[in-house]
Order: sequence, then C-alpha cells, then structure tokens
Amino acid sequence: MRSGSLALTNIGQLVTNDPSREGLLGVVADAGVIVIDGIISWVGAAADLPETPDVIDCDGAAVVPGFVDPHTHLAFAGDRADEFGRRLRGESYEEIMAAGGGIRSTVAATRAATTGDLTSATLDRARRMQAAGTTTVEVKSGYGLDLEHEKRLLAVAAAAGSAIALDVVPTFLGAHTVPPEFAGDADGFVDHLVEVVLPECAPLARFCDVFCDKGVFTVDQARRVLLAGKEHGLLPRLHANQLARSGGVQLAVELGAMSADHLDHLADEDIAALSAAETVAVLLPGVSFSLRLPQARGRDLWDAGVTVALGTDCNPGTSHIETMPFVIALACLEMGLTPEEALWSATRGGALALGLEDRGHIIPGARGDLVVLAHTSYVHLAYRPDAPPVAKVIKRGLRV
Amino acid sequence: MRSGSLALTNIGQLVTNDPSREGLLGVVADAGVIVIDGIISWVGAAADLPETPDVIDCDGAAVVPGFVDPHTHLAFAGDRADEFGRRLRGESYEEIMAAGGGIRSTVAATRAATTGDLTSATLDRARRMQAAGTTTVEVKSGYGLDLEHEKRLLAVAAAAGSAIALDVVPTFLGAHTVPPEFAGDADGFVDHLVEVVLPECAPLARFCDVFCDKGVFTVDQARRVLLAGKEHGLLPRLHANQLARSGGVQLAVELGAMSADHLDHLADEDIAALSAAETVAVLLPGVSFSLRLPQARGRDLWDAGVTVALGTDCNPGTSHIETMPFVIALACLEMGLTPEEALWSATRGGALALGLEDRGHIIPGARGDLVVLAHTSYVHLAYRPDAPPVAKVIKRGLRV
Repeated sequence: MRSGSLALTNIGQLVTNDPSREGLLGVVADAGVIVIDGIISWVGAAADLPETPDVIDCDGAAVVPGFVDPHTHLAFAGDRADEFGRRLRGESYEEIMAAGGGIRSTVAATRAATTGDLTSATLDRARRMQAAGTTTVEVKSGYGLDLEHEKRLLAVAAAAGSAIALDVVPTFLGAHTVPPEFAGDADGFVDHLVEVVLPECAPLARFCDVFCDKGVFTVDQARRVLLAGKEHGLLPRLHANQLARSGGVQLAVELGAMSADHLDHLADEDIAALSAAETVAVLLPGVSFSLRLPQARGRDLWDAGVTVALGTDCNPGTSHIETMPFVIALACLEMGLTPEEALWSATRGGALALGLEDRGHIIPGARGDLVVLAHTSYVHLAYRPDAPPVAKVIKRGLRV
Repeated sequence: MRSGSLALTNIGQLVTNDPSREGLLGVVADAGVIVIDGIISWVGAAADLPETPDVIDCDGAAVVPGFVDPHTHLAFAGDRADEFGRRLRGESYEEIMAAGGGIRSTVAATRAATTGDLTSATLDRARRMQAAGTTTVEVKSGYGLDLEHEKRLLAVAAAAGSAIALDVVPTFLGAHTVPPEFAGDADGFVDHLVEVVLPECAPLARFCDVFCDKGVFTVDQARRVLLAGKEHGLLPRLHANQLARSGGVQLAVELGAMSADHLDHLADEDIAALSAAETVAVLLPGVSFSLRLPQARGRDLWDAGVTVALGTDCNPGTSHIETMPFVIALACLEMGLTPEEALWSATRGGALALGLEDRGHIIPGARGDLVVLAHTSYVHLAYRPDAPPVAKVIKRGLRV
C-alpha cells in the first residue's frame, strides 16, 4: 500500500516486545530498524544495518512501538468542565445529575452538534493523541444512542483517523446509557438497539461493547446486545466492574470477549477467572485519577498472569485525558506497575486487546508504527508526567 | 521600562484575585483589561473598555494571572530517570544511593557540565514552564555546593530568565546537602558556607534556603545559615518537614521565614503554628505524586487559614515536573483543594510566598502578566491534566 523504505539507526534502546529476546520488552541496545512499504522488514544491531537510502539517525534515543490505545470515547461534542468543578467542590453525583451533568449531557451536546463541529473536535483530540505517540486508537460510539447519531459517530471517528493516518478501530457502544426517549425502559431500548440500530451500525464497526454495571445495563441485557453483535460479525468487549462487582467479568469470560475494561471492583475470584481466560484486562488509570477513586488492582492482575492493556478512556466526563505517556505515568505511580509492564501494556497489550496481531511490537512483518523518544530511556515516559518525551512519530514507515 | 499598550477584550471569565471583588478569585465576566508600559492600568467590563490601539480579542476565553512558581531547582544537568525506574521496580533508597543515585549524582553532573550545556538545559525547561503560563519562577542553587558552582548556578538561572523574559527570583540553597568533600562533617560544611560561599553568593540572590530535615541539616545548622543569610540581606525560606517532623516549621516561624516548603509531615500543632504566623505554606504535590507518597495536608492548611502557595519543585530526583497547570490538577485531585483554591495558590499564593506584592493578581498597578486560556473556564486547568489549556502568555504587556 505504502511504497518506499525508511531506516532508523543509532537507536540507543530499541523496545521490540519480541518474546524471543531478553526481558519483557526485548530491548536491543545500539539498534537499527528498516521499514519497507509500511512493514518492518529488519531489526538488528545498528552496526549490521544494510545499506538503505532514507535513514533517520536517532542519535542514541530510545525507540518504542507506536502506542495502541484500546479504549476511548474520542468522538463527542462539548465538555463537562463544569461538572468536574462541581465534583471537586464536593457536590454529590445526584446534585450534579440534577444540574444537568452526566453522560446524558454529552449525548445532548453530541446530537446537537453539526457534523463539521463534531469532526473538528474529534480531529483535534486525535492530533494530540498522535503527537504523543498513539498510532492505533479504538473509538466507541455511544453518545448518539439512536440510529442516526450512532452511525454518524462511527463515520466521524473513521474520518478523523483517515485525515491524519491514525488507525481507528471502531466499536459500537449503543448500549452506553439509556437515552431520554427510553427513560425507565431499558429493556425496550435494548430491543430497539438489537432490532434497529445495531444491524445498520455493524458494517461500520469491528467490536460491540456494553456498559454493563450497577444502574446501567444488567448482565442479561448486556449478553443480549453482545450476542446480537456477534450475529452481525462484531466481536464482544465490555465495560465491566467499574462501579460495582456487577458480573461483568464473568459475562466477558462466558462470551470470550476480547477485553474486559475498567475492572475497578475485583474480588480475587474475578482475577482468577480472568487469568484462566483469554480476555485482556484493559485498565484506565486516568479515570480513577480524575474521579479521586482508588486505582484498579493492576499489580494483582499482572501478578496473576492476566494480559493487561492500558488506555486513556478519553471522554469528557471521567477522564479528559488523551496521551498514552501520561497513562503510563499513572499506571506506574498510582497502580504500581513497573515502567516495563506499563510500556508493554500500552503497546503490545493494547494490540492484543484489539485482536491486532500485527502491531504493538517491532519485529519483521509487523506494521511500521514506531515512536522515537526525545531521550535515551523509555523510563522518561513515566519520569516526566507533564512533558511527553516524544520526538518523532512514524506510522507505517512514514513520519507523521 | 516597556513602552506601548495592550488591551484584552471579550474575556469570558477574568480571574482577578482582587479581594474587593466577589469570591476568592474575584471573577469578572465579559471583561476587558488594559496594560500600559507593562503595568495593568484598567480592569472592567468589556463594554466599557476605553479606546486603545492594540486589542486582543479573547473570544470568550478565560484569562488568569500569570503563574508564580515559588519553588524550583531549575538549574541542573543530567537526569535521574534511572533512579526513578529503580524506585518503581521496588529498590530501596539505600540500594539506589549505592548505585550512585540521589542528590549527589546531580551535584556531580552539574559540576561537570559546561556552562553552555547547563544554560541550554535550564533554558529548555524555562521555555516549557513559560509556554504553560509561568511568568515568575523562583530558582534555587544547591547542586553546586561550592563557591564556584553555586555562583555559576545563580548566574545561569538569571541568564535563562532574561533570555526569554521570564522573571527569575534567585535563592541561595548552598545548604542543600553535604558535598563529598565535607562527607561526615556537616558542621564544617556549614562553617565553610557561612564564611566563604554565602558572602559571595548573596549579591546574586534574594532568598536563603536550607534543606532542614532528618538526615540532612539540623534545626541548629539551618538557623545558623539562615541568620548568616539575613546578615547578607537574604530573606529566609525553608525546606521544612518533608521527610519528618524535624522542627522546620517552628524554625520558619521563629525566623519569620517568607515560606515553609514541602510540609509533608505536619501535626495539628504545626498547622496551628503556621496559621498564627505570616509564613506562607508552599506545597509541592508533584513530589508526593512522583514518589508514590501521601500528599501534604493541603486541605487542612487551607481550612486553618494558612496562606497556601503551589509550586512544581522542578528537579531531576523527586519531581521532574515543569508546568503549573499540572500542579493545579494534582492539588485538586490528590490534595483536595477546589479549582479556585488551587488557582489562587498557583498565582497570588506564589507571589506572596516570594514577597512580590505586585503580581499574582490582575488589578490596576500590578504587573501585566496574564495567561489567556484556550477555554472559557479556568476549571480546564485541572480538568485536562495532560493538555495545558494555555493559548497565549503575556509578560509585562507583551506576548511571549
């Protein structure tokens, strides 16, 4: 698809995530990489780099795989700064809802926005994500909640991604909350989703997601939506156990979901269930940080052998965070992951959470998605939380 | 000094910190400001703005006073990412010291750096601070620890500030740690500081600071340095109670110190002592965030009526943080301040901590240091911790 070749040389520290190399990150010192037609074709010692025309000298800097952010709500209009301020001043969730806050305020703003404004706001966020090293991002619908607006969100997400060569993986999250027109009738809304909305949105999405939690959608409602999604070719993933031990983990495992996300309320048996399954645990430390809540048990999930991924959960209500280096810093400083575990989870973990075998690592045959850091060590990603140490972002072998 | 005038109009939300106006922040809606010759000359409703030649239309954005960062170690060479990574992997402080970490590794790197490299590194950090809205920054020496290198650090800090029109307030912190050449002889080092180093550094500084804490300098040693500083015209400020209840608060109050900084270990009686004094409490939430420690009792200090300021403590070991918006976010999310308290502390609080009556507020007669935000509300400063919402920085009436 892309033509031409690009080589990187004098990479002080190349993070490959190659399990055939040493350590979790498979670091190669003094390395070089060649990308041909968008695909990594060679990885090795800089001294052995074959002759190539277009070479970037990294001057000793670290190079890591492009970040894969597996959980975002990137496409929305408006903001919820007012709600955020009220929360910090001590108002309760009920008071905030009464003042017009919560997901539904974003649904109203998103439905009311012109497609031009919605695309422009989404694109601005996508650009900041990309500038900080994200090369693949999952984007959920879920602020439309009817056929017209759910389709529009998926189209807007795709348009934003293709405008800047950022790979967008679309997820249908029609079951994000019950919209006002179905107030008090969640089952009726699920009927409508399954019969009317999902069939027409499915061709625009790859995954189906449900906010399965206390006060949102029940396990039975979530199962119904996810099974309907499967019938339309959408793989299941799940907002699980964010607000309570709501049975989301067990449903995710039962359905073979690609990921179970959030996981703020986990008993030991939930961790055991995840460690016996293939489902990836997607952790979103920006949410707990932004809500002043305890972090999910990321350390315990790692230690139990669960595959962990990290995401921004970029959304206007609970995590207005766009950049993966900041998420890595939070995962280290607030969740107790090591810099190595956090970086792996932000790259290879994210790719596995999205079922994308071809990225999140730097090995021959993988996508040529790489980030050249502004420093000699990837530890800088966590070390300087307000200065993302990204010098160059390379997408499919081309500098973006 | 500066000539010409500048007006801002269509300010949706002007944070004045003017106590004659309503609320802590004295917010004026739909406001305008005029700066003449670097000094604010008029504040009022945009509709009443007198005719002026050079007008910036803020298009409804919020405008706040320039941030005053009252505690940094901006001038240093090298980094301590390796030490940071070791800490996250579970190594103890003793192991890290044995591996060459700690303040002394920065002293060695700073002494070894050329003046050009030291200035360049300092200037890079200063630029990022300024781009995020800091218009006045305190900078401490303390990585030189001998006459030649302490003088050089103060000169480098001044040079970095004047290169970019960032006001640098210099502090002599010769008593930051005991250098290798005085190992085991802290009293001998204090003699040397007081007799040799301080007299020659004093003309380059405004304040004198000491790291008075468990395992560093005792209260008696700190008193000796600070009193000597006073004799040379330097006002005292103090690293106090960071590592333990070490008596630093009582010493700060006894000497009428301008500020007591860190304050991570406070008993109720320490808070009472501060609330009965004029000494400003300078809180540095980036440190506890970076070290995975509990935050200082910022909420309790506010509630006790203590004047609180916020700073970055920018340094390579314990808080590699440069931007005040991120510090505001941490103060809200980790320390429990409201967005209003955090913003006041990052502007007027910082000015009071440095004894600078002429800034940190937007009133006629104050310095024309202002930050135009990229949003309509100052709450965005805390709401989006990885995207400092700064559109324009204005220093003494000139856009930087």
